[in-house]
Amino acid sequence: MKRLRVNIPKREYDIIIDRDILKNTADYIKEVFGGEKIAVVTDSNVGPLYGDTVTGSLEAAGFKTELITIPAGEKSKCEKYLFELYDRMLSFGLTRSDLIIALGGGVVGDLTGYAAASLLRGVPYVQIPTTLLAQVDSSVGGKVAIDLPRGKNLVGAFNQPKVVIIDIECLKTLEPRVLSDGMAEVIKYGAIKDKKLFELLENIKNKEELFAKIDKIVYNCCDIKRQVVEEDEFDKGGRMILNFGHTFGHAIEKQYNYETYTHGEAVGVGMRMACEYGERLGLTPAGTAERMIKILENYDLPTYVEISRQQLGDAAAVDKKGEGGSINLILLKGIGDVLIKKFKKDEFLDI
Amino acid sequence: MKRLRVNIPKREYDIIIDRDILKNTADYIKEVFGGEKIAVVTDSNVGPLYGDTVTGSLEAAGFKTELITIPAGEKSKCEKYLFELYDRMLSFGLTRSDLIIALGGGVVGDLTGYAAASLLRGVPYVQIPTTLLAQVDSSVGGKVAIDLPRGKNLVGAFNQPKVVIIDIECLKTLEPRVLSDGMAEVIKYGAIKDKKLFELLENIKNKEELFAKIDKIVYNCCDIKRQVVEEDEFDKGGRMILNFGHTFGHAIEKQYNYETYTHGEAVGVGMRMACEYGERLGLTPAGTAERMIKILENYDLPTYVEISRQQLGDAAAVDKKGEGGSINLILLKGIGDVLIKKFKKDEFLDI
Repeated sequence: MKRLRVNIPKREYDIIIDRDILKNTADYIKEVFGGEKIAVVTDSNVGPLYGDTVTGSLEAAGFKTELITIPAGEKSKCEKYLFELYDRMLSFGLTRSDLIIALGGGVVGDLTGYAAASLLRGVPYVQIPTTLLAQVDSSVGGKVAIDLPRGKNLVGAFNQPKVVIIDIECLKTLEPRVLSDGMAEVIKYGAIKDKKLFELLENIKNKEELFAKIDKIVYNCCDIKRQVVEEDEFDKGGRMILNFGHTFGHAIEKQYNYETYTHGEAVGVGMRMACEYGERLGLTPAGTAERMIKILENYDLPTYVEISRQQLGDAAAVDKKGEGGSINLILLKGIGDVLIKKFKKDEFLDI
Repeated sequence: MKRLRVNIPKREYDIIIDRDILKNTADYIKEVFGGEKIAVVTDSNVGPLYGDTVTGSLEAAGFKTELITIPAGEKSKCEKYLFELYDRMLSFGLTRSDLIIALGGGVVGDLTGYAAASLLRGVPYVQIPTTLLAQVDSSVGGKVAIDLPRGKNLVGAFNQPKVVIIDIECLKTLEPRVLSDGMAEVIKYGAIKDKKLFELLENIKNKEELFAKIDKIVYNCCDIKRQVVEEDEFDKGGRMILNFGHTFGHAIEKQYNYETYTHGEAVGVGMRMACEYGERLGLTPAGTAERMIKILENYDLPTYVEISRQQLGDAAAVDKKGEGGSINLILLKGIGDVLIKKFKKDEFLDI
């Protein structure tokens, strides 16, 4: 078992990484929670696989649990299911002294984490991420949110979990496309902060080799995210680098109504676009986009999609990192190193 | 002009108390905000009175403003208007570098403050409370929320404003019943923390005398709230004393569907009930309920309403201060001094 400590003042917490540990969920929960009731939120994909294992462990340890299942998919990260969670949790009699667990991928984690942040002005919660994307990205760092019809993550909070429990075995049940979805964020960590990780990923030959090395890869990614989050809990500066590929990625997701492409697929294309922007501006070394395309292809990720100027402009307009009329774009200084380039919103469309 | 500094680490802010200062709103805003766009949220009562004064001051100082008006009344503190605010603010092009102002009573302050807490994971905001209740209570301390059909303030956040601008002159335009509404919270401060204030309030003969002394009264109340909030920003202990009269009060408001009684009226009755509970338990000196009834009558506040056992039980069940099966009730040790008594939820109904 590996443990990473996220050192955010007054809200420190551990990330626990191991194989086949869901059946011991209660052991980790008892380290951080002495109350009675636990609402476990999951989705229609993950619930049937792991719901009983988690609630079984908790009930056996004496906790009262309520399993709440939302439909799988990004569309559930919305107002409707947020208020349904509030209602179910209040029906269960949850108070601020109880606990909420998010058991699932990024949608479950973001929606549940935001419900936990806002219900009764804050109920403690725990992340048990079951997808690669959630394990390396969304479950760590406390950024939680729901989508609005206008765009993704437009309503949310910074809400650190009490503990993150990562069971690597869960990755074995992922559909290939969902695994690729997560690999896009893994590639991102290499691109922005860890040249060795990027090179390791470039050289992995097949799924078997990937799975043999995935424990260390997940650990590396969580460790990078930990460092970035510790330096900038509230997303005021340093954390911005995690947004590499995301401004374009969000625009792609939105143009295709969050249906055609997964988050990782959209971010992958966004990373290629950011590399090309950087190269055109002379800020990114020539050949970087080419390397990005090859590594995306290595993990069955798309490298190109149609996206309209209009959509890019709209996405920039609601970008949370926007400051008045400008937008900050993350570009690569090289593999493993980034720079932040501020654009006027109009000029950014004309590159 | 009087200024109170609320010393919450990293989120310090001033409460500015003076007469006829709305026309100078921009001067105070410039002290805390260097951005461009300001969304001003108000309601259908307050907007026609002060909306133009505030936006006029801001526009003259070069800010771009958008005035957003919600219907007056507690019913607007709900999911529907929350999401309407998000939509209007995003249409206006608001980013995290812009500002939101709440101009109105407690409903506008709570709803707007919560929208500000959650939109884009947090946009800075300012409180300009125009009712007595909002000036002495809801605008200070950062507790913001919306109601759910199940009860009041069930979804919310702790979100400190950048500054609170209190214009005492606004109190002159209040309907008598709205003024009484606020007086209930003023009486509460006296009851829990300031015997002299309570005695002053007992001896005030008429509205003229009240208005002559109101500046100092508002200042006293804000100063008490400041102290309590500084000691317990996140409502984990000390702040609980502000809840005197509120557990019963919330039950009354809910039983009458937030229509028959104002918040202050319900809290007033709740304070009488808490005094009587305390006397029956031998924890509150005999005669305290009698004094409470007299002072409530002095400010045209009701002292008794019908409330069912069922409703009291339900209110206790969703009380945010509840810890598992128990509820903390605030009782008076005497005028100006409180104690916190923990009850099992069932036994609390049998007193």
